[in-house]
Amino acid sequence: MSETASPRPVALIVLAAGQGTRMNSDLPKPLHKLGGMPLIAHALFAGAALEPARIVVITGHGAAAVEAAVDDLMPFAICVRQDPQLGTGHAVLQAAGALAGFEGDVLVMYADTPFVRAETLAAMQAARTTHDIVVLGFDTADPDRYGRLILNGDSLERIVEAKDATSEELAVTTCNSGLLAADAQVLMRLLARVTNDNAAGEYYLTDLPGLATAEGLSATAILCPERETLGINSRAELAAAETAFQSARRAEMIETGVAMQAPDTVIFALDTWVGRDAEVDPHVVFGPGVTVESGAHIRAFSHLEGCHVSAGAVIGPYARLRPGAEIGNDARIGNFVEVKEALIGEGAKVNHLSYIGDAEIGEGTNVGAGTITCNYDGVMKHRTTIGRHAFIGSDTMLVAPVTVGDRAMTASGSVITENVPDGALALGRAKQVNKPGLAVRLMERLRAIKVSRKG
Amino acid sequence: MSETASPRPVALIVLAAGQGTRMNSDLPKPLHKLGGMPLIAHALFAGAALEPARIVVITGHGAAAVEAAVDDLMPFAICVRQDPQLGTGHAVLQAAGALAGFEGDVLVMYADTPFVRAETLAAMQAARTTHDIVVLGFDTADPDRYGRLILNGDSLERIVEAKDATSEELAVTTCNSGLLAADAQVLMRLLARVTNDNAAGEYYLTDLPGLATAEGLSATAILCPERETLGINSRAELAAAETAFQSARRAEMIETGVAMQAPDTVIFALDTWVGRDAEVDPHVVFGPGVTVESGAHIRAFSHLEGCHVSAGAVIGPYARLRPGAEIGNDARIGNFVEVKEALIGEGAKVNHLSYIGDAEIGEGTNVGAGTITCNYDGVMKHRTTIGRHAFIGSDTMLVAPVTVGDRAMTASGSVITENVPDGALALGRAKQVNKPGLAVRLMERLRAIKVSRKG
Amino acid sequence: MSETASPRPVALIVLAAGQGTRMNSDLPKPLHKLGGMPLIAHALFAGAALEPARIVVITGHGAAAVEAAVDDLMPFAICVRQDPQLGTGHAVLQAAGALAGFEGDVLVMYADTPFVRAETLAAMQAARTTHDIVVLGFDTADPDRYGRLILNGDSLERIVEAKDATSEELAVTTCNSGLLAADAQVLMRLLARVTNDNAAGEYYLTDLPGLATAEGLSATAILCPERETLGINSRAELAAAETAFQSARRAEMIETGVAMQAPDTVIFALDTWVGRDAEVDPHVVFGPGVTVESGAHIRAFSHLEGCHVSAGAVIGPYARLRPGAEIGNDARIGNFVEVKEALIGEGAKVNHLSYIGDAEIGEGTNVGAGTITCNYDGVMKHRTTIGRHAFIGSDTMLVAPVTVGDRAMTASGSVITENVPDGALALGRAKQVNKPGLAVRLMERLRAIKVSRKG
Repeated sequence: MSETASPRPVALIVLAAGQGTRMNSDLPKPLHKLGGMPLIAHALFAGAALEPARIVVITGHGAAAVEAAVDDLMPFAICVRQDPQLGTGHAVLQAAGALAGFEGDVLVMYADTPFVRAETLAAMQAARTTHDIVVLGFDTADPDRYGRLILNGDSLERIVEAKDATSEELAVTTCNSGLLAADAQVLMRLLARVTNDNAAGEYYLTDLPGLATAEGLSATAILCPERETLGINSRAELAAAETAFQSARRAEMIETGVAMQAPDTVIFALDTWVGRDAEVDPHVVFGPGVTVESGAHIRAFSHLEGCHVSAGAVIGPYARLRPGAEIGNDARIGNFVEVKEALIGEGAKVNHLSYIGDAEIGEGTNVGAGTITCNYDGVMKHRTTIGRHAFIGSDTMLVAPVTVGDRAMTASGSVITENVPDGALALGRAKQVNKPGLAVRLMERLRAIKVSRKG
Repeated sequence: MSETASPRPVALIVLAAGQGTRMNSDLPKPLHKLGGMPLIAHALFAGAALEPARIVVITGHGAAAVEAAVDDLMPFAICVRQDPQLGTGHAVLQAAGALAGFEGDVLVMYADTPFVRAETLAAMQAARTTHDIVVLGFDTADPDRYGRLILNGDSLERIVEAKDATSEELAVTTCNSGLLAADAQVLMRLLARVTNDNAAGEYYLTDLPGLATAEGLSATAILCPERETLGINSRAELAAAETAFQSARRAEMIETGVAMQAPDTVIFALDTWVGRDAEVDPHVVFGPGVTVESGAHIRAFSHLEGCHVSAGAVIGPYARLRPGAEIGNDARIGNFVEVKEALIGEGAKVNHLSYIGDAEIGEGTNVGAGTITCNYDGVMKHRTTIGRHAFIGSDTMLVAPVTVGDRAMTASGSVITENVPDGALALGRAKQVNKPGLAVRLMERLRAIKVSRKG
Repeated sequence: MSETASPRPVALIVLAAGQGTRMNSDLPKPLHKLGGMPLIAHALFAGAALEPARIVVITGHGAAAVEAAVDDLMPFAICVRQDPQLGTGHAVLQAAGALAGFEGDVLVMYADTPFVRAETLAAMQAARTTHDIVVLGFDTADPDRYGRLILNGDSLERIVEAKDATSEELAVTTCNSGLLAADAQVLMRLLARVTNDNAAGEYYLTDLPGLATAEGLSATAILCPERETLGINSRAELAAAETAFQSARRAEMIETGVAMQAPDTVIFALDTWVGRDAEVDPHVVFGPGVTVESGAHIRAFSHLEGCHVSAGAVIGPYARLRPGAEIGNDARIGNFVEVKEALIGEGAKVNHLSYIGDAEIGEGTNVGAGTITCNYDGVMKHRTTIGRHAFIGSDTMLVAPVTVGDRAMTASGSVITENVPDGALALGRAKQVNKPGLAVRLMERLRAIKVSRKG
């Protein structure tokens, strides 16, 4: 990419102020999720591949929530509020302050257009070397309500909204995606000339090619497949987009060499990374931030978020890896086990019914069924540290903060409140007593009570 | 509905006596499940929207089981056995006794015709104001084996079975669904005139329009989309019906404003209700009787039956809510947690690996991992009551009947057999003892034994 | 089958030496899984229906791993390595030694052709009674790169590779699947005459019909549907094959009379057997080796491998049955329960959050929530035996080897390290102590610490 991309610095402006009324939701549209991440993340991630010098997000409806999400996704992005909202041209103009002093190209993107590929953005940028304004267009069999690109050779003369188009113009099937690239100064200068002399009384970004051409600048269009320009305006469109997203990711994974018995039952996130010859069994859900190395095996009904699984590790079935779970080579996380903010050492095993949170488990250690790191005292979280080749007996409660040493053991059913030295055995349980015949007598008594209550 | 419905009282007769041989099952056909509920529930629920004065279910094959299910679904319904089974007309006649003294309209429905909508039934009833007999029909591209409606304008002259039809009649594509509405007295009087003078020697309900017309009464047909009249005769048809049912419910949920990443992996029941802006993650199963309020979040791999989830609550992943689980606002039921017959207070948390049954947990209380309400003593079930803002330590066994007070705590690993007062700390565990070096010596001994056994 | 099959003994040669480069995997192609079992298992199982006297598998790439899998699937099969790999004819020749002394027919099959049915193989064998060489062919709309069968009546004159075919021959749409049957001696004699006089310098099995015809022997072709001859060459083809496999198995199950609400979410293995009127709820995964009797109920999110479920048993939701789990009639395995190498007696219940491994549980016994068989001491596995009508209290640790007698009880929270006699109650827990007001003081102190740390 770095070789074909223009050497000019680039800034992104991502429009994220719209209300998204048709989403039928109190959640701002840019925050509806696609591939497990907010819609706006898709545009931001694609744009980030250009290594932009600045990212400006224009917010409006639900601005506080959108800004919080942007801050989480791209902490260095600058959010600017558009209030009131007077059209796309007006929205882009709000970025003027945030771009002060910036010299280079600006790429205008949209929070609700998640499928544009980084390669397409790079092609737009490359086209800037020959033209002042570059618009992203697409050919479609059903142009309908889209703005039409009026091209003369490779020169884009203007963009005509469908409702203003002549019948000749309506016959054009090359349409406007809304994405646009231009030099920052040129962009802002031209935008200042856009008027709101139209039915909606708004300032439209689409006026730019016409204004540019009129003053002797050159505009052009780069075309991409229609699917890249897909916008999301309703929950039904979002559902369709999710289906398309998942299909594409599943096909990519198969192409990569990931073994999947039932790809249609595996849910990927935008940033899921799985290595060649890894196995992903049916009914697995990947939330954001997961990397799985080659040769790892994710078994059925597993749920992973914000975690890393090393080569040779086997996860599940029914394993839940939460953010901060770091699973070492050849380690084993078994059924009904939850791991959160924890390092599981090479070859360590947590096979059954356990909760491991805020912990570090050393290489080769075996954690018995029903083990719990009691990490929360009602106010604060504390850490548990277990050494290498230790043996944690079943149903051990590890009351953090606590440390269990290398090759140490805990007896089954123990509550460990104090550190266990290397090689020591820790016990904390009452001795068993058998009461002969008492079980039979107890049951008889209970049955008698039950009968008497009914009587 | 109440405004458009006829003011006359209405009674339902639901035919549920058939054997369903092609189902290849010992289970009576009306009890095969669609949308998580018996087939017959679909007809009963649609009919119930008319607020019928009486419901009569005609049973036959597997009568005892069908009657038990009807009693469970609609306790006020009257079941009447048809024995022997001599045709649909004969079946409806069996309801005569149950309808004694009833004055109004009767609607004849079928246990194996689950997709008829309440609106369609209301339209049939409305048409009774102008005609004596109202038959529900449908237009189809493939009339094949269906009975044909022989209409003259809006007047239904008779119904002709396919095998008795002339080639002219076979060309008719308006067919009989079997559903029929008539005045109770008229219906029973006409049925008494139906003969079994046919190849099968049965009494057919389809003879009614002809008989009515012949004696100067008027009959008509109301048409509905073919999909509403779909009957279930084999497991393959049931599977297809389930697919259609789920698709429709998923689309409705999206329309309502429910956020679903992978609707195709979510299974709804007939009566599932989910509010706007609730989130339902992939791989969730709803059994019967679930309501989820707006803004609740049902995470992946959750399984819900007969429960209520309030606004702001987060359920799962891997949470199982069983009948009687009542989850308060902003409460949290986490992974590998089962809740049954229990009230979980506002903001309370049961985050990991717990069983909460026959219990009440107060507002703001935190239940640690591995907590179990020991509600069963081998004979009877007992209740556990936990106050507000209490802190239940991990691996606490609550041996019911038992009460834990407000702001009380239990120490991790405790078995609580006696009540814990407000603000008290309950402890029930042995003190930890560390045996230096013993773990290493034990392991060496075990390894030696293993070697000696192999030797 | 035995009546229509030829009475001659039959031997199988399964070619499994190819590299499968297009699989993009380090795993040898025969070991990629379809229906939960290695690809080669499909060919072996289909062939095994002919009750072959010998099975010879020709290995090459990844030979050691393939041989280990074959040994696991069919211990009496003989593996022979082909090294170097000089074509299919050369591969079959490698079996000469392993077939020494064998008199009868040989059937040549392929590890990567999983869909050939036993009935088709039987038809090939039957055709041997009238012809010396029998080739399996198929008609296809898209013959493209396949070898063409040049037939004259029912006489197969020769097989022509697509690249060597005349335009007239290319018009032939009857193609070669590669499968071939012949008398063992004839096969080996003709193979010795095959030359590598072709572009690839390989010895092709496809030369046989031509050689046979030339020396006056007769060859013929048996045709089967194209889908049976489907070969697997890439992960995308494997994914498509899995989809086809699952669809077929789901349809078979519905045909058998298995009740499934959402068949598309149920994953079957090659050898899954489920009885009539069993119920399989959504999101269930069957690994290899599972049998489920009529009337059992497998609830949602269950995962079964190598186990048997008897009539009337209810499994799940969220139950994991591992190899060696043997579930008795009317037994109940509930949520978040793992069972491995264990016999669960008739009517016994393990309803919640338990791990039962290397154990036997008697008839009518109730195992409380959170029970764990502590079967592993860090070096060896040990067994737990529980009698009939026993009551295991919640959170009981059964430290194996250990025995709990008939009608015995264990108190909740006990660690059982010694045998419990019949009818006895075993207790092993500390007594509860309540410390009035301490919970409130502890919380205040913790909050103060938290504030001071932040300050």
